[in-house]
Amino acid sequence: MPKQVDHEARRTQIAKALWRVAQARGLDRVSLREVAAAADMSLGQLQHYFTNREDMMVFAVEFMNRKNVERVAERMLAAGSQSPRARLRAIVLEMLPVDQAAEAGSLINISFLLEAARSEPLRDYARKRALALRGVLEGQIALAMRAGDVDGSRDPAAEAALLVSLADGLRANFHLGVHTAEETVALMDGQLDRLFGG
Amino acid sequence: MPKQVDHEARRTQIAKALWRVAQARGLDRVSLREVAAAADMSLGQLQHYFTNREDMMVFAVEFMNRKNVERVAERMLAAGSQSPRARLRAIVLEMLPVDQAAEAGSLINISFLLEAARSEPLRDYARKRALALRGVLEGQIALAMRAGDVDGSRDPAAEAALLVSLADGLRANFHLGVHTAEETVALMDGQLDRLFGG
Repeated sequence: MPKQVDHEARRTQIAKALWRVAQARGLDRVSLREVAAAADMSLGQLQHYFTNREDMMVFAVEFMNRKNVERVAERMLAAGSQSPRARLRAIVLEMLPVDQAAEAGSLINISFLLEAARSEPLRDYARKRALALRGVLEGQIALAMRAGDVDGSRDPAAEAALLVSLADGLRANFHLGVHTAEETVALMDGQLDRLFGG
Repeated sequence: MPKQVDHEARRTQIAKALWRVAQARGLDRVSLREVAAAADMSLGQLQHYFTNREDMMVFAVEFMNRKNVERVAERMLAAGSQSPRARLRAIVLEMLPVDQAAEAGSLINISFLLEAARSEPLRDYARKRALALRGVLEGQIALAMRAGDVDGSRDPAAEAALLVSLADGLRANFHLGVHTAEETVALMDGQLDRLFGG
């Protein structure tokens, strides 16, 4: 019987290798050759799965995003029985990784933006992801409005868009060392206070 | 009489050449050699002014920042006789370049973040710049509070920090195509509405 290769497992192996390389050096300094070495395969084997750098990058970003969605979903489940505000806060804090893994994530986050600035497929992907995230927040804000926790005159779409952009900006400033982790979380809580009229 | 070389003019010439190269390719893809060519001088001549890439980068960023500060100062002067809210809005919009030059600025902005992630002097510079900007906004918010336009219970420092991070995040999402220019400005106006209790 010929040896069966699990192609999906191979692609996952490659994506994980890419993230290991990118964590140390940034996505912009990742080459097919280096990822092949980190995934313990030849360049030829890797090219069987990804013919160019951009395809590999899009797959790896989607892979990582699925992990992030799982994390957000877990947070939502864990906060399921809580108030709309607690659920919203749980999601927003998931977008603000200020823990010990954040230092490593910093280079990846920033270099991803740069890759996206140079690649239409990645930009397209980033756009869809931002809109999906906004949609989740929008739903939670609408629920909070139904519960009377947020003033009915607010626009859930605009409030959600503000939270997404604020999280992005706070993360960038945390990475630059403008705010500490505590200040970053306190600033986001200030924005939530405002939304909930606190 | 020996020929007098205006060293400051030469450094400015180099900084301008660097920005021309960076606008097309991003700061991360700028080399001393390319900048020398764009500044119409030899690599040896350029190295007389900057011995390494990082020194050149820090000078060029400071040069560009002086231009930005001049722009903000001009905006403030132009808005001098207006309400605190109009002045604050003028400064904040200056931080949100969504005009036709923004496309070119996008690559520079994003690649600057990446350079800063990899260089302590640049990160230090970015931090000081963000804090200076926050200080200016904080002053305008304090004036608005004195004028009774902003609720006295607000914390000007926190409100200013939120505006800076929000501007950074909105700019990144505008560059990714998540928001149009109009939506970007409308979202910032929404945040100002909230600050001014509108």
